[in-house]
Parts: sequence; structure tokens; C-alpha cells
Amino acid sequence: MPKTEQSQRRPAFLGDLFESLTERGRRLLGWREGTGPDAIQAPDLSELGERLLSRRGEASGVVIARALLAAFEDADPAARLAFLQALADGFGPDAKAVKSALGAFQASPDAPEAMEALHSAAEPRRQELLRRLNLAPGGTAALVRMREELLRHLRDHPDLRRVDHDFAHLFASWFNRGFLGLRNIDWNTPASILEKIIRYEAVHAIQNWDDLRNRLQPTDRRCYGFFHPQLVDEPLIFVEVALTRAIPDNVAELLDLSRAPIRADEADTAVFYSISNTQRGLAGVSFGNFLIKQVVEDLKTERPNIRTFVTLSPVPGFATWLAAQRKDEISALISPDQRLAFAALDRPDWYEDAATAEQLRAPLLAAAATYFLRARDKGKRMVDPVARFHLGNGARLERLNHMGDVSANGLRQSHGLMVNYLYDLGQIEANHEGFAERGHVAASDSVKAALPGPRS
Amino acid sequence: MPKTEQSQRRPAFLGDLFESLTERGRRLLGWREGTGPDAIQAPDLSELGERLLSRRGEASGVVIARALLAAFEDADPAARLAFLQALADGFGPDAKAVKSALGAFQASPDAPEAMEALHSAAEPRRQELLRRLNLAPGGTAALVRMREELLRHLRDHPDLRRVDHDFAHLFASWFNRGFLGLRNIDWNTPASILEKIIRYEAVHAIQNWDDLRNRLQPTDRRCYGFFHPQLVDEPLIFVEVALTRAIPDNVAELLDLSRAPIRADEADTAVFYSISNTQRGLAGVSFGNFLIKQVVEDLKTERPNIRTFVTLSPVPGFATWLAAQRKDEISALISPDQRLAFAALDRPDWYEDAATAEQLRAPLLAAAATYFLRARDKGKRMVDPVARFHLGNGARLERLNHMGDVSANGLRQSHGLMVNYLYDLGQIEANHEGFAERGHVAASDSVKAALPGPRS
Amino acid sequence: MPKTEQSQRRPAFLGDLFESLTERGRRLLGWREGTGPDAIQAPDLSELGERLLSRRGEASGVVIARALLAAFEDADPAARLAFLQALADGFGPDAKAVKSALGAFQASPDAPEAMEALHSAAEPRRQELLRRLNLAPGGTAALVRMREELLRHLRDHPDLRRVDHDFAHLFASWFNRGFLGLRNIDWNTPASILEKIIRYEAVHAIQNWDDLRNRLQPTDRRCYGFFHPQLVDEPLIFVEVALTRAIPDNVAELLDLSRAPIRADEADTAVFYSISNTQRGLAGVSFGNFLIKQVVEDLKTERPNIRTFVTLSPVPGFATWLAAQRKDEISALISPDQRLAFAALDRPDWYEDAATAEQLRAPLLAAAATYFLRARDKGKRMVDPVARFHLGNGARLERLNHMGDVSANGLRQSHGLMVNYLYDLGQIEANHEGFAERGHVAASDSVKAALPGPRS
Amino acid sequence: MPKTEQSQRRPAFLGDLFESLTERGRRLLGWREGTGPDAIQAPDLSELGERLLSRRGEASGVVIARALLAAFEDADPAARLAFLQALADGFGPDAKAVKSALGAFQASPDAPEAMEALHSAAEPRRQELLRRLNLAPGGTAALVRMREELLRHLRDHPDLRRVDHDFAHLFASWFNRGFLGLRNIDWNTPASILEKIIRYEAVHAIQNWDDLRNRLQPTDRRCYGFFHPQLVDEPLIFVEVALTRAIPDNVAELLDLSRAPIRADEADTAVFYSISNTQRGLAGVSFGNFLIKQVVEDLKTERPNIRTFVTLSPVPGFATWLAAQRKDEISALISPDQRLAFAALDRPDWYEDAATAEQLRAPLLAAAATYFLRARDKGKRMVDPVARFHLGNGARLERLNHMGDVSANGLRQSHGLMVNYLYDLGQIEANHEGFAERGHVAASDSVKAALPGPRS
Repeated sequence: MPKTEQSQRRPAFLGDLFESLTERGRRLLGWREGTGPDAIQAPDLSELGERLLSRRGEASGVVIARALLAAFEDADPAARLAFLQALADGFGPDAKAVKSALGAFQASPDAPEAMEALHSAAEPRRQELLRRLNLAPGGTAALVRMREELLRHLRDHPDLRRVDHDFAHLFASWFNRGFLGLRNIDWNTPASILEKIIRYEAVHAIQNWDDLRNRLQPTDRRCYGFFHPQLVDEPLIFVEVALTRAIPDNVAELLDLSRAPIRADEADTAVFYSISNTQRGLAGVSFGNFLIKQVVEDLKTERPNIRTFVTLSPVPGFATWLAAQRKDEISALISPDQRLAFAALDRPDWYEDAATAEQLRAPLLAAAATYFLRARDKGKRMVDPVARFHLGNGARLERLNHMGDVSANGLRQSHGLMVNYLYDLGQIEANHEGFAERGHVAASDSVKAALPGPRS
Repeated sequence: MPKTEQSQRRPAFLGDLFESLTERGRRLLGWREGTGPDAIQAPDLSELGERLLSRRGEASGVVIARALLAAFEDADPAARLAFLQALADGFGPDAKAVKSALGAFQASPDAPEAMEALHSAAEPRRQELLRRLNLAPGGTAALVRMREELLRHLRDHPDLRRVDHDFAHLFASWFNRGFLGLRNIDWNTPASILEKIIRYEAVHAIQNWDDLRNRLQPTDRRCYGFFHPQLVDEPLIFVEVALTRAIPDNVAELLDLSRAPIRADEADTAVFYSISNTQRGLAGVSFGNFLIKQVVEDLKTERPNIRTFVTLSPVPGFATWLAAQRKDEISALISPDQRLAFAALDRPDWYEDAATAEQLRAPLLAAAATYFLRARDKGKRMVDPVARFHLGNGARLERLNHMGDVSANGLRQSHGLMVNYLYDLGQIEANHEGFAERGHVAASDSVKAALPGPRS
Repeated sequence: MPKTEQSQRRPAFLGDLFESLTERGRRLLGWREGTGPDAIQAPDLSELGERLLSRRGEASGVVIARALLAAFEDADPAARLAFLQALADGFGPDAKAVKSALGAFQASPDAPEAMEALHSAAEPRRQELLRRLNLAPGGTAALVRMREELLRHLRDHPDLRRVDHDFAHLFASWFNRGFLGLRNIDWNTPASILEKIIRYEAVHAIQNWDDLRNRLQPTDRRCYGFFHPQLVDEPLIFVEVALTRAIPDNVAELLDLSRAPIRADEADTAVFYSISNTQRGLAGVSFGNFLIKQVVEDLKTERPNIRTFVTLSPVPGFATWLAAQRKDEISALISPDQRLAFAALDRPDWYEDAATAEQLRAPLLAAAATYFLRARDKGKRMVDPVARFHLGNGARLERLNHMGDVSANGLRQSHGLMVNYLYDLGQIEANHEGFAERGHVAASDSVKAALPGPRS
Repeated sequence: MPKTEQSQRRPAFLGDLFESLTERGRRLLGWREGTGPDAIQAPDLSELGERLLSRRGEASGVVIARALLAAFEDADPAARLAFLQALADGFGPDAKAVKSALGAFQASPDAPEAMEALHSAAEPRRQELLRRLNLAPGGTAALVRMREELLRHLRDHPDLRRVDHDFAHLFASWFNRGFLGLRNIDWNTPASILEKIIRYEAVHAIQNWDDLRNRLQPTDRRCYGFFHPQLVDEPLIFVEVALTRAIPDNVAELLDLSRAPIRADEADTAVFYSISNTQRGLAGVSFGNFLIKQVVEDLKTERPNIRTFVTLSPVPGFATWLAAQRKDEISALISPDQRLAFAALDRPDWYEDAATAEQLRAPLLAAAATYFLRARDKGKRMVDPVARFHLGNGARLERLNHMGDVSANGLRQSHGLMVNYLYDLGQIEANHEGFAERGHVAASDSVKAALPGPRS
């Protein structure tokens, strides 16, 4: 039965549906019609913020929160930046309260109440402001967008970092995995969500709706996403999965529009071949770890025939790293033989010649093993960000795949190399701990065997 | 189509569906089968808590959180209390970190980063612990139950108050109105929710399912509740509403099973005659304020014919207060004439005799006006808790109703008095501010007129 | 989010929402306000029927159908009966068309078109009328109610039987199992449906909501119903199921409010202990057959541990039959020994005395075996209607249970006897065929063994 | 939460999920594995049909129906045609029964029971067969596909027409408007349904997903469809609606991807600019009539600001008709002046030259008025099928739009002419009756005025 628009849209709170929300902000600021500056300015936004934190704000918090968020979105970029700046400068902890709490704490440093009072006093006022802004209908989404804008300014305005710190703190609590729902995304999913999958896919771009259908509809394809109750149409992160027989070693086969699907009960392996975060405003809130493990668990229950869970992953840092090694004539990480062989990589079409490609296999895999197992960046971390993510989750580096992705992008970033990371739930805790505490890289024997031997 | 149990139940994460969860806790503690004490004890719960905060906890937080919560629920009362005590004593702020942050802060008291670091260091570790416990499926509900238990111990264990402070802080963020959904509760609502309405109704007890239906199904009755996405079957608060012609002055008519309903489009008034919180574990997180205003807004949109929004409320503190005045022979709050008249109240059946009841009207209403407008408790607050709630929300005291509730309970707590509070959205902000800042009670002229004149 | 009433209710078609529907009927009949008789009369209903079958009816069928159905429900009983009578008399086949079709058919009896034309001509016009009445919102439900009323008149007005024939024909098509959905009924089902379960339960009355919950909520209880898309809140038939270890032999244990439930995965048997049709207006449309088989199939898939599917059924005709045999002194169906033993049944409290009850076991079971396997009514059918239903579905008579139901009702109708019918999907087709074509009763060896031996 | 496949897919009835359904058909026919012909043949399908109508069919109708439908879909085209033929030849009325019923009828021609018996006997057995096939899960959809295939054979196999007659009879009952639900189709609709909108759109082809979104997502666009509960993912018919200010006179503006939408509350007119049936297998079951009227009613309730309901319709027969008039040198329907003017139409780019286009306006509109108001086909019907549909529904021919559709298709079929039909609910009954009974075309004054005057 058709829903009327009226019932689909949240009714306005305290006012006319069609009144401009900025106008409401102006009214809340006590301006009569026709007075005051033409547009809401940053000082006005700050004033609304103060009001929201005030007594009056308790009685009509929803209204003020709505008005402030709407006015922020209507404001011009300079006014918006100025408001963010005001959050940094004017909505920090209450200095007097801190001073007083500090005195009390120093007087009785062992009284838990004194510590508690100190903690409370030291909380920036903007945390409460953000919580109250969240009262507005659509407030959570508006705050995620506000932080997205904030992040764009961080480089040029490092003092905004403390505002970002509060956003990150609250978002980690609000977007706790316990509040997220895992949902299947398939060909019966509303188009309004599917178009976001096309837009957000970050690993292997989705060309069009046919390409999308090819990743969702066949019997051997799955897609899962985490959703938050307040962002109903927005997957926060999603993972694309292929059900296969055996671990695949290249992505072209997986994405081939003309391949013949297998039945889900014929598969023995689930391959996570693309995982994409969607909300820049949620940067730093980690979902991927939970998503992969939950999907592993669900697929094990749904399809006991599936026993192996792996990724087919890009190696985005490999080509850059290798170029540096080749340039660095005294690099100990590649051997003279390898160095010689890599000259072939400079021919743009090397991968189209089977013999050349085959000659490059051994040296490239040896370099890749070195890249993962020995190479470290200045911070003593693994160089590859994707590797850090999966190994940090407790996965194991399972296989190196020569010519795994010979698309332009694959060649550019990794000379075609792809790898599989294996998720074995029984091992992930130990793997994670070894990696996090000792930097130990869990790797299969075959990966270790690819390491170049000691040079004689 | 029938859902299988399998699909209704969340699959186990990382383990056997039927393994006892306490057993899992034992295993996580490294106990082999048959070793260790028979039951999980408080030290074990603390150890699981430390583990959840540790490195390994990052990799398998969901599993540990599940195990800890399940073990807590399985543990005996003494072990549970001991764990709560451990939260108070062992999971406070990291003392070393506080000391160090304090040193840095004193060195540069104007550096926002130093303040920020101090704030972070002063955060009790149990806040992060509670956030991680929330990772478990059903974690939010388990934490609400845990706090309910905690609250029962507060009187005897005042040191638990600081644990409660952290619960309250997190719950205020997690149960922010922005995360709640308003839902109609009617005769099409699942029985599993309706039985909770019967159980939780706090104002006018619901006798049985027929009584419940009488409050939900007629065309002139509504019920609304706030729900949280993680507590799907649990209304957090609900309000029962009657649509009427004119403001009602007694509750018996509203609840009469045999009355003839009117059509919703014939009503001009919406009466909030019962509002009940349901979750003791959410004490102090305020919902009622938001709920009433939202329902007013929604009803205005749905039924433009409804223009007046009032409560029909009990006056739970009146009889006790009046008894004290009568006892206090020098009370200035009641006059000698009133005092004389109130003797009739001591007859248990006074209200059944029309003449007596009528004689009591004037003195009781005068005393009631005094009770609301002049009487104050030691803290200089209004005596009546229901009045504090509605006036604090910005409502106005609209009318005093003699013989509004002559049930045993109504007679006992207020000699039958009921009152109406009026919600006029255009006035609530001013009313709230006046009340919160100056203790000003917004009252109609008729209430003011009921005040006894100055004694000559 | 609350739905407004507006969106829950179907908008009126072609007119004012609040116009009386009878008034609309009057207008359709061309009456001005204030003219015409005060109430819609049967002739008017017939006139509306003719109009619905006419040209104008094609353009605004929905409007006329609505008006006719509403006017029928508003009319007084005599007018309603008169309309049903008019359906019998005035909306039969078009006599002229039949005559003409018959002539054509006799001219060329082998032309399929002539036969087809004859068939069309012989279709009573009321079939098309009923189809057009179904255009109205709520039309299907209104027609089911109309037939319910019709059935009550059948005894006194046998000519209405031909109207009933057309209802039955259409309903068999409209309520084809292919159009029905099987749904779980559990404690999360809306109260508006559950109250109908209480009302319609026909076998073991449900005392109150606690009794209902005891049949729906425990882990070892299920309830399933068939629903039709047009009768959303009305189960057409439902079956209550207990999951047990072993086949139960009495109903008191199953319904015991204080029993301890078992887990669903511990059960090996599913017991259909109550099956109830709900819509008298759908009499003769068979659902039970399909319902039981579908539930067997679904439970097998959901719970592979359940291997045995039986009923625990009453034997409603047994006591009456036995009384007749006892009265009939030359009955060959009970032996003199049995006859002697049955005297104990005349003591009202026989079942409370263990020794007496035990003495009656053998003779009662022997009589029961005779009742099922040998006794036949005048139409050569089995006497027991429940047995005819289950054996007709292809079940097997599995076990006779002495003292299976010692409630007042159980004692009265069957001296406490209950039986189990077994549904073995591999056998039901053969069992059904044997029963339907040769009257063969599928029975277990134990039932056969209970037959009294040949008298010497 | 993710649904497992298991719960999404109906469990198999009576058997292995993965057994080939054709194999099941073979087994039902009593063939052992490895015996019998390799494939199911037409005689086997007929045998299954007989079995479904038999005694055994009562017990396991669902199984047999499933097997027959699956075997039919697996069979090769010749076998499928042979089965359809068998339906025509072997599943007609039971000749004996007809003869006997006829005898009884002639003996007592006034006995309603005799007529009823005759009607029953004359019902082709295939009607009951089709009803039983509908028992299978997915049976309704399979039968719709079966009829679609049947319709393709009608021209070459006219004897199948009597099978089609039975399909049509049952479908008219099963797809009664009372069983259909109206649903909004918008950008939140599942992609699996939206891709069908793209595929089925019959009037103005939808180029791609962007074009589709442009018809669904803007605030001034709507799309509605009728759905049947058994064909959940299949709209049976859908209509695309534009909300506009004033009645539009050309389609290009409506479909312009770059136009600026208006708000729904700014519109005064709803324009039905495309209506498409989707299921060939439901040919002859009329939905469009009901759909348009229901949408008019719903939009009136949802948006009281919308007062005018019109189509913007193609005129598919106009160019052909006009060519015939031009060829027919003595045609009385066009004047010599018009004939002369029409020569310009032979220039392929006439519409791109403003002056030429303007010169053609008057003669084309005069011809169009003639086409609608005077021209009739051999059957004395209006020539234009779209006109017959809307006028038959009771609409009025409101306006002739020169250059309304200058796409290649629009030029080819109507020299760019489009028309508006107006739906005025107060007039449709009278309009319909006039059209159906007297062939009267309801037309606005402006259309009538466009008729060429009497030639002097």
C-alpha cells in the first residue's frame, strides 16, 4: 500500500514544516524578520551552541540542535570553518572548574571522588555539545558529515585536532560494534543502497549496474555490510565475497562477467576480494576487523561445506618499495640476480609475453616475500597497509600470486602481484598478539620458502 | 513463512553453539576441563575484564565480552557483588598515567593538549571496559541489567557510586534521544511487548489483558513508547493517551471499561494519563521530557483537531504533606478553618457522602494550591515529584481536581486529588527556564485563585 | 515510527470518508436525500446486484461492490435473508442463454465450442456477482461472513443450497493452498491475532493468556497457521504442536502449566495435539490436510532430530457408539465379558480409582480397536470423524491411549480414550488411496492386536 | 541480520532438496532409475495430470503438481506443445457425465439442481487440473508462464483456444482486483523489481538506470504498480506519474533529465504518462482501469492540491490512418486543403522547421479530431487502441497536442501528435456507459472545435 509522504517524513518539531531552518536559527537568536545580517555567521552558530548547553537548551534541545545543524549546513565554507575553530577554542574544558577540581584533587589525591571530579571538569564542553546536537532528527548523520569536513581542514589547521579527538571519542562509543547490524546486500536490496555500493567500492571499481549485479546475484556471490540504526540507507563498510572451489590466484577470473557460477553447496572456500569503508567522517572507528570475523562465522553456520576463508588482496605498496630497492644500489633486500631480472619490468608490456612473465615469477615472488617478512618502514612497521590491516586482525599471509591482477592499476601498484590472507578463527588471537606485541608476521611455509636464500 | 529457529537466533561467534558460556569463560582463563574451582569466581571475572582490555582483547573482544557477561550472569550473588566492587577498586583511572599527565599539565597549563591528556588519563579504565563489553551480542541489555543490580547495592556500598557514575555517563550517550525510535503500541503489537506494558505500568495498574485492550484498541486511545535498537522488545518508557472532548477531571471515567469511545476526529484534547519508565537500569537517563513533546508534535500533525495537551496526574506527596501540616499546630500553610474542616478526612468513607465531599472541596483545593505554589522541601524544591517532573519540562499547572481519583491508592496518597498539567509548546521554554532558574511555578489563574487569601 | 491513522486506513474510493455507506447505496439507487424508504431493503440490494453486473458496473465496480456489501451488513436480518433468497432465485443461469446454447450443442454435440458455450451459459449469474463483489476493499472477508450467515439458514431454507454451492466453488479456488501462507504463531505475534487463537481453539479450550503463552512460548512448543493475503489478521486454521521425547499418551501432561520444557534439539517427536478451523464461512474448503503435511516438512528441515510425527487426538464418537453397543444386546461388536466389565463405567468416579481404571483398560482398548477397525456407520464409513480426517489424509492409527484425557469432556465423549495418528510421509499416499478407495484403515500392529480374539 | 539461504528458500516437500524435479516426475510415474525414456515426454505429462486429478492426487497433490510443473518446464518445446494439445483434447468435460446431466436436465428443465449438475458436468476437467497445479509452490507463476507459451501457439493451433479460455476464466478470478495490492515503486524499491520496470516499460523506453532514477526519485515523480501476493517480485502493471503545474503538451519536457523538479505541494496536476502491462500470460485480465482510478483516489487523499488527473498519451494509429485517407482519393474524412497541406509531412525533417511545423498544426489537429470523433474501423469501433482503453474507462478526450512527441517513434506513429485524456471521477460512469452502449466519445469543447467545419 502506498505510504503518503506525510507518513514517510518526520514531522517538524515545534514549528512549521516549511519554515527555513536557518530562519528558525535566526529567530532563536532573537532576530526579528528583516533584522540582523543576511546570513547566519559563525558567531551565531557559537551562540546557538552556548544556548544548547544552557538551561533553555534542556527544555527545547531538539529544536535548537536542529536549527544549529541546519544553519551549519546552510552556512558558507568560511563560516563553517570558523564554527569548527570556535569548537576548538571556545568549547574546551571549563578552566575555572578544572582549577577548582585540581585543587581538591591535590588536597586529597587518593579520594576517588576527587579524581572523578577532575575527570569531569577536564571534559571539553564540546563533548556535551556534540551529544546534544545528536538529539536532532538526522543529527548523527549531520555530525558524521561535520567531522568529514573537519578532517579536510586538519592539515592546515592542526589546532582542530583536539576537536577531532572528541568526535573520534564519541563516534567510537556510538558506532560500537554492539550497535551495528550485519545485513546481506543482494539484488533485492533497495536501489538507493545499491547505488552507494557502486559509488563507494574502493578496491575493484564497479563499472555499472550489470557489473554490480554480477557481484550480488549469482549463487556463488555474497555481499555483507554493517549498518547503524541511525544511518539506515548507508552501509558503513561492506565486503564482497566469492564462493569458490580452491583459493583463487587472480582477480580477473572472479570478476569475469561471463563466468559460469557454481552452486553455493559446491564451494569449499569463501574469498573476501574487496572490502570498502564508506564514511570518511568515521575514519579511525574500526569496523573491518569485526565485519570479516562475523561473516566468517555466519558463513560457517550457513554453509558448513565452506572451510577455508581467505582474502584475495592487492599489495598497494609493493611497486614503490621495489623501485626504491632497485634505485638503492646497496640495498641488501634484493640480490644482484633479482636486480638484473627486474630490468624486464621496465618494458610496459612485459606481462603480455608469457616467457618474460614466467622469468619474472621467481624474482618477484622472492622480492615479495622479502617485502612482507623483512622490509620495515621507519616506524619499524610492515610497509604494506593492507598487510598491516589483515595481520593486525590475526590473519596469516597464505600465498603470493604472480600476475594476480594485470589491470593497469594492478601493474602500477604491485607489478600484478596479489596475495591471499587466511582467516583461521582458531589462530587469530595468537596471530594478532604476536603481530601486535612482537611484530611477528604469521606466514605459510610457502611464503617463507619464497624468501631468497642467504647469498653466498 | 515460518522462520527457522536457526535464523532467529544469532549464531555463536567462534565456538560451539551449545557450549556453556561459563565453560567458555573457564577456557579463556586457561583452565583445562576438570581443573580450577567449580564455579567462576569474582577474581576470574576481573581477570577476564583485564584480558578484554588487553592486546588479545583487541583480536577477540566479542568472544571475551560474551564470556564475561555470561559468567557474570551465571555467578552467584556474592561473586557478582565482588566483581562490581572490583570495578570500583581495580578499574579506576591509571594512577601512574594521571600523575604523569598532571605533571605535564602543570608544566604548561595553557596547552590544550596537556588538558586533553589529563582528561584521558583521568578516565576510569572501567569506561573502556564497559564499551568493550558492549561488543557482545546482547551486551547492551546485559549492561543495563548489571547496573540495575549495582543500584540495589548502592545504599549499602556507597563506594559503588563511582561505578554507577560511569554507567550513567555511558548510558546517557548510548540512549541519547537521537538513537531512540518512537513507536505506536496498540493491539497489533506483539504480545511479548504488551505483557511488559502490563508489568511496567506504574501509575494506574493494568488488571488483565481486557483492561490492556481497553487502553489500546478503542478509537480514542493511544499508547506510545521509546525503543532502542538494541533492546527491541523493551519499551524504555511509554505513555498512555486518551483523546477526549474537554479536559477530564477524574481518572475513573477514562479507565471505565464500559464507556463508549468517540472517534479520533471528534476529540479536541489529548490527555497523558499515565507515563511509566520501565528499566531501572536506566535510572537517571531522562526520556519522559522528550517523549511527551514528541507525542504532542506527532498528534498535532496527525490530528489537527486536537489543540489541548494535558496530563491527568496523581499528586503522590499531598496527603503526607497535609498530615504534617495538620500535626504542626503552628503551620502557617493552613488556616484554622481548613484545619477544622480536615477532620472530616479522618472518616474512612468521607468521599462516599456527597455533602461531606463537597464541604471538603474548598479547603482541600486551597491546601493543594498552597502545596504547589508555596510549600517547599528542605532543599527549597517543590514537594511533589510529579509536579517537579512536569514543571521541569516546561508544563503549566492547569487545574486542581477534587475527587479525581477515589481509588484506595488515590485516597491514600492525595485524598483523591488529581491535577492537570498543560503542555503548550509555545510556552515550555520560558516555563522551564523560570522554573529551573528561579523556582517559578507556572500556574493557571484558577490555580492561583484557589490559594487561601491573606488571613486577617 | 508511529503510523498515522490516515495511512493505516484505506482511503475511500470515489467519495467522502465519512459518508454512510448505506447512504451511498441509496444514492447509487438514484434516491435523493430524504426520499425513498428509510432503510435499504432486499429489493434494493438486488437492484445494486443487477447494477454491478451491468455496463455501469464495469466502470465503477469497486464503488458499487462496496456499497452493496456495506448495505448488506447494515440491513436487518430479514432483508439480508431476502437478499440471499434473491441470489438463489434471481441470479441463476440466464435461461434464454441456456436454451440457445443447448440448441447449438444438440446440433453439434461434438464441437468443443458448443460444450464450452453451454458451460458458460449454465454458470449461475451469481458467480460473476460474487467475483465483482470481491472488488471492494475488504470484499473477501465480507463474502466469507455472508456465507457464514447463509450456512445458518440452510437447514430452514434448503433452496439456498445452490447459492452455497457457488460460494463453495469460488472459495475453493480463491483459498487454494497455493494462495495461503504458513506462518509461525508465537509470543511475538500481534495480540489481535492471538486473541483469535484463544477464541477459535476448538479441541482443548485455552483458559486465558497464561494458558496461551504456555502453548506458544516454551522452547518445546510451536503453533502454525495458514493465512490468506486478504484476511491478514485471521488465521484460517492453526495447529498446536508439542516437541517431546517419545509419543505422549495423555494430554494433561502436555498442557500442564508447571512442566519443565525441554530444548528443541532434545526432542525426537512432534505431536499435533490440537487443530482448529476458524472460519465457518469457509466450511468445506479443506486446509488441515495441507497444513499438517507442510508443518511435518518444515519441522523435518528445521529440526532433523525430530523423526516421528504424530497426533494426540480425541475420539469424539466413542462413548456414544459404545453406549449403543451396550444397549444393543445382540451386538456382535462387544463380547459378554466386555459388556460385564463396562458396568464399572457407570460409576462417575471410576477413573479416580486406580484398580477400577486398570480393570477397564483391556476391555476399553478392545472396544476401541473394534470401533476403529470394524464398526461402520450406515454409510459404511468409519464412525469417528476425527479418524476419518486423519486416515483420509493418509495417516496411520498408531496407538490407543487408555485414560488419555480424563477431563470432564474427555470422559464424556470417549471414557478418557485418546489415540495417536502417525504421519509417515513415505506412506501417506498409499494409506490415503487404500482408505479412500477400499475403506482400508491403516493401523499399527499394536492396535490390531488389541482387537478381541474370535469368541470360542 | 543476514538471512541464510536456507530460510529464504522454501524447503522441499517430501524429498531431497537437490533431486532433479524431472527425476521426481519419473519416479512418480513408477520408473526406476535407468529405465524409461531419457526425458519426460508429453504422454508422461498427461499421465501426471491424470494422476493429479485422481485419488492419490488428493493425498499428495502438492508433490505431483510440483513435479508436473517442473517436468513441463524441463521438457523440450515439442513435448510442451503436445501437453498443451493434450489439455485441449484429453481434459475437456467428461462426456458421459455431460450426457447423463443433460438427460436429467431435459427431464426436469426447471429444477435448479439439474441445471447446476449440467453446469458442473460441462466444466472442462482441465479447470480442476489447473487449480490443482496451483497447489505447488510457485504454481501461480508457472501457470502464468504456461499460458504465455500457449498464447504464442494460438495462431497456428486454434484448437488451443479452448484451453486458453479456461486459463482466462481462472486468472480473472485469481487476479481479481480484490486480491491485488497497490504499491509505490520508488528509488527504495529492490533492484530486482526495478530492473523489471526497465524491461517492461512499453511506452517511452527507459534507457538506463539514470533514466529510471529520473522517473522515480524526484519530488514530482511517482510510480505505482499492482502486485499479486503470489508473484511478489513481479509488478503486473505499473503507471508512471508526473506531478506538474498545468497539463503538459509534450513528453520531452517530462522526461528531460536536466529539468528542475518542483515540490509535490506545488503541483496541481497529475499526469499519467506511461502505463505498461508486464505479464503476457495475463493478457485479457484487465488491471489498467482499476490502477488509474485507485491512483487518482490515493493522490487526491495524499495531495489535496492536485485537482486535475490526465494522461499524456500516444496516438499509435493516427499516421497509418492518415496515410490511408491520403491515399484514398475520395475519402470524405479529409478536405482537399488538408490533403494539400499534408504533402509537407513527406519531408523527413518537417518538424525541425518551425514555419512548416506551424503550417501543419491546423490541418493535423483537424485530422486528429476527425480521427477520434468520426473515423471508425470495420467493426464500427474507434480506430485508436489507446483511445478505446481510456474512453472505455470513462475518461474524456481533453486536448490534442501538436508536436507532442517528436522522437522517431512519435513521428512515425502519429506525426508527433499526443493527446490528453482526463479522468474526472464524477463523470467516468456516465462517460463509460455512453461509450460502451452508444459509442459516444466524451470530448472537450476544444477537441470538438478542432473538427473541420462542413465543406461548403
